[in-house]
Amino acid sequence: MNLKQLAKELNLSFSTVSKALRDSHEISVATKNYVQVKAKELNFQVNPFASSLRSQNNKTIAVVIPEVTNDFFGPVINGIESLAVEKGYHLSIYLTHDEIQKEIAITKLIQNRRLDGIIISLSDQTSDTAHLQELFEKKIPLVFFDRISEMIDCPKITTDDYNSGSKATEHLIENGCKQIAYFCISKNLSICSERMNGYLKALKKHNIKQDNNLIFSFTGEEVEIKKSIRKLLACKNRPDGIFASVEKLAIATYEVCAELKLNIPNDVKVIAFSNSYMAESLNPSLTTITQPAYEMGRETAASLFKLLEKKHPLLIPKKIKLNSTLVERNSTKRSDSKDFSSINIIDFEI
Amino acid sequence: MNLKQLAKELNLSFSTVSKALRDSHEISVATKNYVQVKAKELNFQVNPFASSLRSQNNKTIAVVIPEVTNDFFGPVINGIESLAVEKGYHLSIYLTHDEIQKEIAITKLIQNRRLDGIIISLSDQTSDTAHLQELFEKKIPLVFFDRISEMIDCPKITTDDYNSGSKATEHLIENGCKQIAYFCISKNLSICSERMNGYLKALKKHNIKQDNNLIFSFTGEEVEIKKSIRKLLACKNRPDGIFASVEKLAIATYEVCAELKLNIPNDVKVIAFSNSYMAESLNPSLTTITQPAYEMGRETAASLFKLLEKKHPLLIPKKIKLNSTLVERNSTKRSDSKDFSSINIIDFEI
Repeated sequence: MNLKQLAKELNLSFSTVSKALRDSHEISVATKNYVQVKAKELNFQVNPFASSLRSQNNKTIAVVIPEVTNDFFGPVINGIESLAVEKGYHLSIYLTHDEIQKEIAITKLIQNRRLDGIIISLSDQTSDTAHLQELFEKKIPLVFFDRISEMIDCPKITTDDYNSGSKATEHLIENGCKQIAYFCISKNLSICSERMNGYLKALKKHNIKQDNNLIFSFTGEEVEIKKSIRKLLACKNRPDGIFASVEKLAIATYEVCAELKLNIPNDVKVIAFSNSYMAESLNPSLTTITQPAYEMGRETAASLFKLLEKKHPLLIPKKIKLNSTLVERNSTKRSDSKDFSSINIIDFEI
Repeated sequence: MNLKQLAKELNLSFSTVSKALRDSHEISVATKNYVQVKAKELNFQVNPFASSLRSQNNKTIAVVIPEVTNDFFGPVINGIESLAVEKGYHLSIYLTHDEIQKEIAITKLIQNRRLDGIIISLSDQTSDTAHLQELFEKKIPLVFFDRISEMIDCPKITTDDYNSGSKATEHLIENGCKQIAYFCISKNLSICSERMNGYLKALKKHNIKQDNNLIFSFTGEEVEIKKSIRKLLACKNRPDGIFASVEKLAIATYEVCAELKLNIPNDVKVIAFSNSYMAESLNPSLTTITQPAYEMGRETAASLFKLLEKKHPLLIPKKIKLNSTLVERNSTKRSDSKDFSSINIIDFEI
């Protein structure tokens, strides 16, 4: 059954049925409900790509991200894609590989393309955002997510990085850590500074003195990063807790701990931002701050479509913050709460 | 310094310098060497996006893949992208989410778009490939990678799935396994059947009788998959080795083993195809067959560009097979080779 046949069956116009199925504000709630219920009863399947096929024009959104080999950006793309398909848009993917020069080149390139809008998450080298201001001034619809710039007045979708940073740090403190290091990839990045501010707030709340020697911003290759972590953890006076603001720094820490024969969580506890489905199977399982990555993709796309549909500015939220979740696992277990499952308990009487 | 200035400096035409830098066959080897050496001396930086900026036309490649939240497809996209950027092409990404209906809808959709070529890896539901034959007959340049169809006469880039399947199985046998299960996601898929044929070959070579009750093709949701694995591993007569043809089946196995308190590798050994950088940090570290995913992306894009540049058919290989690597870790360790590092050894004299 196609849309035309469904419209005939319901004795409504093609356009009414089509709009009702797309939840258009032009159709009354009663009609929308009627059409949606009937469509379900008649087992009518929407062809997700029908509107693109019909419109023939190449409605395209550019998604500019640092990398694609990442458990966070993958589900974000899924979220963006799910809405793009519903709306009949194509996705073009551009990777900056965390290089500002590539980001600038890409923004120049896509200005010359007939693109409908741009979704972007900044490279970790980006501090000057003149190239993005240019896009904004040319009135190209633009939405930021996760790694945002406060300088540009367009919709921004983030998670509650400040609160999550604070929650992660408090979790380490509550489980006995007294000397907590903060690992990030770049202080330029909004996510890294927000998470760090949350970390500092938690330290203050618990009367732990801020120690700038425990705040690390790692740049460069993996080998270099591991070298720095090794130097830190090989010290006598090493931290007893690590809060990694991105997953790869936690995995590097795991590898260094394995080399140095340091036990996680007994010698050092680790918590990290991560969306990996493998967190549960790591050795030990990793306590994570998990971001609602898919939902973030959906919300980002939804904001962009509001710009494209020229909704009233008041209907377009400037900032949306989604909540992340702390998932407690073994990498932050209290050292005194031994896991008895593997110990033989001997009953005895006095 | 831009290209024009470089050409002036070298006293050559703009077009000669441009072609020499792009390694064009129209320029002599001597001239190419001269230009490349001089460009380096003068510290001339190629703008990777310059050719797109100049050409103004929207040179676009569609990349149709099952999913993007995956440690294999991520680096493949990186490989494709690296060459696309060099050649001045844009990438459009389409996700089938392993649904044949979406794959068909996407192929219809992209026929109506002015696309230059298509790179595809099949959904796990695809057995009939009429929709792709249609693209091929319309002379739309088409290249398959990894999950290919033998039915369509276009370039195909794979890894040595048959040999790797055999190598993985022999590795389990050599480490003491006698009853080895094979896990895959769909027998339709070329990769799954090739890897299975390798598995069967290894069993035969070692005089182990093929047992069809040990060959599993899992479909459906994660919960269902884990239920089936749980049923298998809770049996008294459970397998002592598992060869997972895709990573997610190994992680599901890890999770089920943790629930059932089965020790990997002592109770059951696990080997899997995986490109995850976390394999080393899993509990226990996972023995993997690691595919050259980035190189596969480069080779796939290179084959497509040969089609686009209308190279002589004889210069376009129909099939390229890249070698995967077996990376031995703890999940397949022989049960008799205990790890003494965690055991106190007491010296004593007789």
